[in-house]
Amino acid sequence: MNGGFALDRIRVVLSRPSHPGNIGAAARAMKTMGLSQLWLVSPACFPDPVADARASGATDLLESARVVDTLEEALAGTVLAAAVTARRRELSLPRVTARAAAAEMVQWADRGELALVFGNETSGLSNDEVGLCAMPVTIPTNPDFSSLNLGAAVQLLTYELRMAALEPPEVYAGDPQPQPATHAEVEGFLAHLEQAVTESGFHEPQNPRRLMPRFRRLFGRIRLEKEEVGILRGMLSSFQRKA
Amino acid sequence: MNGGFALDRIRVVLSRPSHPGNIGAAARAMKTMGLSQLWLVSPACFPDPVADARASGATDLLESARVVDTLEEALAGTVLAAAVTARRRELSLPRVTARAAAAEMVQWADRGELALVFGNETSGLSNDEVGLCAMPVTIPTNPDFSSLNLGAAVQLLTYELRMAALEPPEVYAGDPQPQPATHAEVEGFLAHLEQAVTESGFHEPQNPRRLMPRFRRLFGRIRLEKEEVGILRGMLSSFQRKA
Repeated sequence: MNGGFALDRIRVVLSRPSHPGNIGAAARAMKTMGLSQLWLVSPACFPDPVADARASGATDLLESARVVDTLEEALAGTVLAAAVTARRRELSLPRVTARAAAAEMVQWADRGELALVFGNETSGLSNDEVGLCAMPVTIPTNPDFSSLNLGAAVQLLTYELRMAALEPPEVYAGDPQPQPATHAEVEGFLAHLEQAVTESGFHEPQNPRRLMPRFRRLFGRIRLEKEEVGILRGMLSSFQRKA
Repeated sequence: MNGGFALDRIRVVLSRPSHPGNIGAAARAMKTMGLSQLWLVSPACFPDPVADARASGATDLLESARVVDTLEEALAGTVLAAAVTARRRELSLPRVTARAAAAEMVQWADRGELALVFGNETSGLSNDEVGLCAMPVTIPTNPDFSSLNLGAAVQLLTYELRMAALEPPEVYAGDPQPQPATHAEVEGFLAHLEQAVTESGFHEPQNPRRLMPRFRRLFGRIRLEKEEVGILRGMLSSFQRKA
């Protein structure tokens, strides 16, 4: 696939950024690496002249940035979302490095839109935010000083994406790729699953035993296909009718 | 060679930096990637409180920085110097990419001290300065917008040095790996699934519609964990009891 085309399909999503300077730095970093789609979830200050100043020639990305209220809105229509996170979390998937994540994202770009999600400067991404993403990503920093600023993290990931896009590996180019489920379809399946296991008594909302996060983790990493979501939901409906 | 040892031997040399904020950003970038030797050739303002603020926890690198008058002094005692340059120059050596340069530098580190040289924010490195270095290095940026700031360039090169020195595996080594299900456990789950969907009427063995091969393909690629097999089978049992 054309490398530039892959970069066009990747949204850089900044969730709840506090400092407009970091939004400008992210825009500049993205443009140096050939990315253009900036999404902002509930930014504290935007638009802002400090963002314009730090963007330094990449103000076109700020002008075309999409501002939304929730991370779900920013992920709508994507087929793969990656979450950049410094912390290991309970029940999370094993994190992949920035380089491996970039290679996988570029390979996925011919199937649809992708998202690369960065959290707030101080608090990072919440567990719920990471839970909405299928691929946790980490930048291998010095364990004694892992304090990357937001602009630097965006710079490193977008650089890896550009490197991966410019030399795409030769992978099954001739194989037809099954159509991936969209983010909304996967969320629809998880809601259906929660309803069915609540009805069956396996899930007790008053005593949840972390069941739904475990299911989210399990089905989140499978990269479900559109047809598979249909089969799984058909199966759930058959169990519900039988009950 | 020990990766950390290689990083200890690499000097990051900023030649004639104009803005103290960039010196601070370079120090922070270096420390996140485990480098510690900062050399400054004729900085316009140093030390400076703006540098300290931008260093954000990496002020130890500013305190131990060596300040010299000429690039020759900063290169004294090194066995290999690389010059980061965005421009192609007449009569210069062919440029190598950041990734290839990092791999070569890490290999050279057991022979002695190394230097990685960055030029002034506006004018870059002079031809004379590049001429003092054996290896011109370029970062593959968007040809229409190659405006990396100095801190970002230091961040990308030091990241590549860390990656070359550590060669981490695809999955981040710091995460504990959950215990995978055995082949027999996965087969036991698939048999249980077939029984449950047959009972519910979703699967008709006389008219199988390739359902079980589809489930096998879906659950086969997920690399189920031991605990997850238990949860899925518990869910199936709850549906069977309800029916």
